[in-house]
This record gives sequence, C-alpha cells and structure tokens, in this order.
Amino acid sequence: MREFILLALKARTTPDIALNNLPDSGRMDLVCRFISSCLCVSNGVRDDTIVHVSLNGPLEPPKLVTIYGDKIKGLKPDERTIALFLIEALKQGLNLKLNQTKPVFEGIEVSKKSFETLIKEKQNSQLIYLHKKGKDITQFEFKENPVFVIGDYSGIPNKTEKFLDSFEAERVSLGPKILLASHCPVIIHNELDRHLQTF
Amino acid sequence: MREFILLALKARTTPDIALNNLPDSGRMDLVCRFISSCLCVSNGVRDDTIVHVSLNGPLEPPKLVTIYGDKIKGLKPDERTIALFLIEALKQGLNLKLNQTKPVFEGIEVSKKSFETLIKEKQNSQLIYLHKKGKDITQFEFKENPVFVIGDYSGIPNKTEKFLDSFEAERVSLGPKILLASHCPVIIHNELDRHLQTF
Repeated sequence: MREFILLALKARTTPDIALNNLPDSGRMDLVCRFISSCLCVSNGVRDDTIVHVSLNGPLEPPKLVTIYGDKIKGLKPDERTIALFLIEALKQGLNLKLNQTKPVFEGIEVSKKSFETLIKEKQNSQLIYLHKKGKDITQFEFKENPVFVIGDYSGIPNKTEKFLDSFEAERVSLGPKILLASHCPVIIHNELDRHLQTF
Repeated sequence: MREFILLALKARTTPDIALNNLPDSGRMDLVCRFISSCLCVSNGVRDDTIVHVSLNGPLEPPKLVTIYGDKIKGLKPDERTIALFLIEALKQGLNLKLNQTKPVFEGIEVSKKSFETLIKEKQNSQLIYLHKKGKDITQFEFKENPVFVIGDYSGIPNKTEKFLDSFEAERVSLGPKILLASHCPVIIHNELDRHLQTF
C-alpha cells in the first residue's frame, strides 16, 4: 500500500466552499488536484493507494479527510468532482469531537484529527517527507507501505519539520525544481511503479 | 525550449464551454490540467516551455491554442482559471480562416490550424510521442528543443500514429502504468530537469 498525506495549512474545514472559486477556500483547488494525482490513472483508480488531506483553515480546524483507492466509487480526476466529495465529507464532519471519525460513504471518511495525531498513528511505517535537500528519490530505498508527507504551497513549517524529525521521517527530493504539491505524487508513483513495487 | 502538443480529439472549439462542467465540453478539464502541468511550477511558470492544445470537437474544428511560458501573465494552476483563458482564446478565434492565427493577449494565441499542419511545422525538431511500447524515457537520448506529442483520454488514432511515423517521430514510454495525459508532462519535465537540460 502507498499512503500520501497532504498538510494543507489554510484549506477550509467547513463545507462552505465556493465551487466556482476553489483557490479562495485556502487553495482547495490544490487539495483536489493532489487527490486526483494520488488516485487517478488512465481509466481508473489506484487501488493500492490511500490519500489523507489534513485541512487546517477556518472554521473548524483540524479536519482530516481520507480516501481509500480500493473502495472509492465515482471518483473522477477533475477538481470540481473531487471538491464535491470534500464538501460532502466536511458536511458530515461538522461538529465532530476531537479524534472522532465518521464514514462519509464507501471509501471516504472524515475525522476531527490533527496532522500530528495522524503522523503518530503512522510512526511504525516508513515515513518520508519531501524536501529539496533530501536524498534523491531514484537512489532512495523504499520499504513496504511507505507513507509520504507533502506540504502545500506554503510548505512545511519549521516546527512541523522538527516534529517529523522526531519520528525519524526520512527526507526525499524529487529533483532540482520545486514542484506543485499536486505534481509530487505523479513522480513518486512513477518511481514506485518502475521498480515493480506493488505496495 | 520544450514544447508539448496535446491532441484533444473531442474538446470543444467554440467558447460555449460550461465552466461548471468542464468534463462535458469534450474533457476540457483534462486540457486545462494538461496546460497546468506543462507550465506551472511552485510560485511561477516555466519560461522554457511552450504548450499547444489541438482542439477537435464541435463546433468549429480544428482550433489550436498556443501558450508561451516566457510571455504569459496571470496563469494559475487551477482548472477554472485556465478554462477562462481558453474560452477567451476561442472567442477571439471564432470565424478564423484556415491557418489564420490571432494573438489573444500576451503569451497566448489561437489558430484555425490542424494537428497535422502543426506537426509539419515542427518536423525539423525532435518529435517524440508517448507510447506504452516506446523506449523508456530514462534511457532516451534527447536532442535540443524536443517536441512531445500526447494523446488525450481517447489516445492517438491509428491513422495519426502512421502520420507521426511518416515524420519519424520517436516513441517514448514513461513507465509501466498508463497515466492521465495531464500527468505526462510532470514526468517529462522531471526527467529533463534532472539532466540539467535547459531546453
């Protein structure tokens, strides 16, 4: 299994998201494209992939939406369709108590869970976070079931970096250019696909 | 310089595109994400890249929209912003005569030009088209100013493949999975970036 975690610092956490202006909801467009890049391939969905988006903008931070590639139905790669999924998840997630999780529909759930709590839950997996000075991905040795952490356009704050360091998260670089967050899963998947790694 | 050509067989060629339903306009969502992947990096636009989208759906096929990374202003990575650019280009391109080109605004132009005519214009460049049985991109030898041809969700028809073969276009594979068209430029750019190829 491959897991991706997006830390979206300003993405809206309540369902009042303007479908006609996704960038204005804390860059929800980026969150949607990220999910699309994690899960979509030609004519289908990657059933070996789970994606978590950690939303931390107004009005009810934090919220975590998790989508399971092997269970989700009706996912399409366009931003608007995915935004509709997220809005439904955030509707269902209104007024959740801390660390409470609720299924939205098959293959998608919403939690009132912080990024830090999620990382703690994943501490026995190989935690990898993208960093321009990390080890080049083509030279990196993956273990089974890697978990990738990716910052949004605002990057990963220093204190979060220290938090990840405390769990011995490994730093990986994807190449010489700083890419859009939504482009990163494409390169990671390609690297794993090339090495016939089914996890 | 790097050039990308998307052959979008069903994408709408007149500006009556529903912004709230881009997939329904012949998968205009795919066209927008493709442009985004060709041109956008973190905090900017690749000024070494030109992208051509060859639109061939109703009502006035063919139409070609070309965006120059070194000149375009205000481009953002979300589908809707890019769709607004395309709608404006298609408005300006109404009733163009065959092979006529019109500037839309700085960095973007629209032509009533077929995919085949564009390929003929590029025949002195290294023409490359993506094919699952092509040579692996990591082993491929690029020349200066490569031009990449990518099919949309419906792929490249046999007759077009023969046409490309007649110009000795080379076949390149990006890996074992068939990816979304919009993911292909991400991997191509990454490969060229890694080899410090500034073209």
